[in-house]
Amino acid sequence: MQAPMRKVNVSLGARSYPIEIGRGLIDSTNVLAHAAPARQVMVVTNAAIAPLYLPALRQALGDRHVIHVALPDGEQEKRLESMLPIVDEMLVNGFDRDCLVIALGGGVIGDLAGFVAATYQRGVGYVQLPTTLLAMVDSSVGGKTGVNHPRGKNMIGAFHQPLAVIADLNVLSTLPDRELRAGLAEVIKYALLGDAEFLLWLEANMDAALERDTTALAYIVERCCQNKAAIVAADERETGERALLNLGHTFGHAIEAARGYGDWLHGEAIAAGMCMAATMSARLGWISAADRDRAIALIAKAGLPTKAPNDISPERWREFMARDKKNRDGKMRLVLLKRLGQAVVSSDYDADSLDQTLAQACDG
Amino acid sequence: MQAPMRKVNVSLGARSYPIEIGRGLIDSTNVLAHAAPARQVMVVTNAAIAPLYLPALRQALGDRHVIHVALPDGEQEKRLESMLPIVDEMLVNGFDRDCLVIALGGGVIGDLAGFVAATYQRGVGYVQLPTTLLAMVDSSVGGKTGVNHPRGKNMIGAFHQPLAVIADLNVLSTLPDRELRAGLAEVIKYALLGDAEFLLWLEANMDAALERDTTALAYIVERCCQNKAAIVAADERETGERALLNLGHTFGHAIEAARGYGDWLHGEAIAAGMCMAATMSARLGWISAADRDRAIALIAKAGLPTKAPNDISPERWREFMARDKKNRDGKMRLVLLKRLGQAVVSSDYDADSLDQTLAQACDG
Repeated sequence: MQAPMRKVNVSLGARSYPIEIGRGLIDSTNVLAHAAPARQVMVVTNAAIAPLYLPALRQALGDRHVIHVALPDGEQEKRLESMLPIVDEMLVNGFDRDCLVIALGGGVIGDLAGFVAATYQRGVGYVQLPTTLLAMVDSSVGGKTGVNHPRGKNMIGAFHQPLAVIADLNVLSTLPDRELRAGLAEVIKYALLGDAEFLLWLEANMDAALERDTTALAYIVERCCQNKAAIVAADERETGERALLNLGHTFGHAIEAARGYGDWLHGEAIAAGMCMAATMSARLGWISAADRDRAIALIAKAGLPTKAPNDISPERWREFMARDKKNRDGKMRLVLLKRLGQAVVSSDYDADSLDQTLAQACDG
Repeated sequence: MQAPMRKVNVSLGARSYPIEIGRGLIDSTNVLAHAAPARQVMVVTNAAIAPLYLPALRQALGDRHVIHVALPDGEQEKRLESMLPIVDEMLVNGFDRDCLVIALGGGVIGDLAGFVAATYQRGVGYVQLPTTLLAMVDSSVGGKTGVNHPRGKNMIGAFHQPLAVIADLNVLSTLPDRELRAGLAEVIKYALLGDAEFLLWLEANMDAALERDTTALAYIVERCCQNKAAIVAADERETGERALLNLGHTFGHAIEAARGYGDWLHGEAIAAGMCMAATMSARLGWISAADRDRAIALIAKAGLPTKAPNDISPERWREFMARDKKNRDGKMRLVLLKRLGQAVVSSDYDADSLDQTLAQACDG
């Protein structure tokens, strides 16, 4: 079934941009001509994606001066040193400030290519062409770019909004099951943090999503992007509300850091992290045990882990969580649930409830 | 003689900031308390500067959590890899988004520390404490941050305005003569590109500046900062007028790149570059031979080179000049003089005049 073309706008004044959602958009000369009028185009992609979509993209870009760098697949490429060969290619080819960067890939490619665009000659334009569900609903929207540091995720980066996000649903047909599920973790996140109606929809339609029903996936991408666009428009640089998007992420980033990036997928770590946030929220008496179980059940239904690895000591948890960018003045701020569909950022919680949540994770 | 405290404001709306000019400001608890209220402070400095000023700065910062990284001296440190140990120290010490970076040093330290501030956890505040005349009058003001790439200067960077610039004239007493003269190159630049009255003043007072008369230096720093502040306020991200500040820089950067950074000081390369720009402007008939000679005479009076090295072939000149960030759509844009005290950015010049200017440089 051919899903209708959908469009979501991210309203940020002069930095506003469209999110185009549909099928066959990577091959669409019209869509690309609108999004990418630049003469010089650097496509940043990875070795797994390039053979699948790069030829069609190059063809659709027509007679522009198109170059590309295909990095090895994986989170370990999201580091400062990976920028140098990309910048090198751009300089060798005489790319100036009017050039365009296209990120063709998942979150790693999007964050890295976005950071290259943010910093090449102090800033050029870029377009996100996400090839995973996770990137479509989350990382490609909102202008957060950056790389990891050995001591923490996304510790070096910039806010730099793309000129457009083009979500071609066709690419989801080749997405491995595990990555589809990892994307659904971020989808569930939007429902839990601020969209109770969407939570009901997901509970009823998770099977269709897992079966890659295009209508269901189109709706999911649109709904998540609407949610994210509203939050980003209200708080572009994460001075407040935007931090809600990190539901499950403080715990999840600690899992990723403790295991070395790449062992758990980001979405898997966030899934377990959301279960910990729900458990802690219930422990605080903010949500009921039934609501906690409902959140965990939906995560389980998506085929995602509901428990963190049990070999991380409470000291290691705290060490990694202390690096979270939400923390201010040494206080650990967490995104917790006041109810299903309403998250809050808080450092005003009973310390025991965090201790117990971490201790429980260690008990498996 | 104790120079009066002077202050210049850079007007950029919410990103406005003061430039404080005076003596003993590094030791001044009051000035620092105003500029640096943060609890966590990373001082980025170099091994030559640290023993001279870091103890006094640390004392003036009182009971804040102050850490520092002292890099080896030199332009070769202005590279992406130099960021990692700084970010590492900040992460080890639990620095959050409310921390502050202080750049204590010359242009290399200011540009690098500013880029760390621009990108640490996607952006934190920073204060410039320039320790060279060049940094006081130029690089510390205006928010251009970044690092070099092996293929070109400042090719990776960001626009990120400081919270304050503190120009302590006392530090100029320990500045080596060669660096004082290099700073005067940028001083002369302001006069040539847009301040004919200042040009007259410099012709009359260059000796006082070279003798480090504090009153003369205070006036120079103030006047240059006023010039730069006006240009930056009108064109923060260099979409137009700000490019005038690159008078002499397209030629100068090519000299630096051809010789390997560090052989010629930046100011020395810019001095020779301005002589080439003046020569080419005269060749075009835009300024008279007398005005060309007047510009070159002032640069010579400051003890600066008036000729580029003669071992760079025209092909190499063009190769390096083609990387200039001012270029658009493949056209080489140059800052040239319409008259002394009025520069223009132009790609609308007779190509022969550039050929001849480069050929003349090769003839020595």
